[in-house]
Amino acid sequence: MLKSINHIGIAVKDLDVSSALFSKIFKVDNMHFETVVEQKVKVASFKIGDVLIELTAPTDDSSPIAKFIEKKGEGIHHIAFESDNVNEELNELSEQGIQLINNQAQPGAHDMLIAFLHPKSTNGVLMELCQNK
Amino acid sequence: MLKSINHIGIAVKDLDVSSALFSKIFKVDNMHFETVVEQKVKVASFKIGDVLIELTAPTDDSSPIAKFIEKKGEGIHHIAFESDNVNEELNELSEQGIQLINNQAQPGAHDMLIAFLHPKSTNGVLMELCQNK
Repeated sequence: MLKSINHIGIAVKDLDVSSALFSKIFKVDNMHFETVVEQKVKVASFKIGDVLIELTAPTDDSSPIAKFIEKKGEGIHHIAFESDNVNEELNELSEQGIQLINNQAQPGAHDMLIAFLHPKSTNGVLMELCQNK
Repeated sequence: MLKSINHIGIAVKDLDVSSALFSKIFKVDNMHFETVVEQKVKVASFKIGDVLIELTAPTDDSSPIAKFIEKKGEGIHHIAFESDNVNEELNELSEQGIQLINNQAQPGAHDMLIAFLHPKSTNGVLMELCQNK
């Protein structure tokens, strides 16, 4: 069962510019910075209530985030929902005809297991399922 | 101060199809349905954790949601952040150079006061500020 929103990913071109902007809007002075080499992104994150906002910038042009920005522009990239068992969830959703990007949970940032559903199956919303290890 | 996420709006073409789809994905059996005549939309909403998900379909072609879907396709439309004082927030943000869609809080759904920031100023993210009356 998808029980809460863990984070919202926002695609940005320039992490310095955007982290300064969001710090101003949300009065945040303790943003967390991290580079995820495998995904070719740099992330600046902060919490609003219980939900993490992840500003995500590409580290090079072959990054999936670079391709997203090229196609759709900067903006909301995905929503991540927390589950106790991502693999069980994937099996159930697949049986119900939901198309998956990842058939199995895989290691993600923040020491979580993650998997994406295909936005074609979910009204254009890119959904991540995630689970604490 | 923007203290929590109140809701996430998702633009959909057909509310019957999408509410059935999201009921399946999130195992929801008590979706709330509402028509907001002034905004020319029908909304189906449900809670995930503390955050409301609002599936929003146009009631006719002149609805802002119809125009959004025509331009960008179905998907995430906006994120609404809760504040204790939307007008104070708007003044502060405006002074900091953030472009506003609404200069003053106005009545919205769920008996709240709402205002939108211009996505040109917020990295392509359409942000709503909202406050309980």
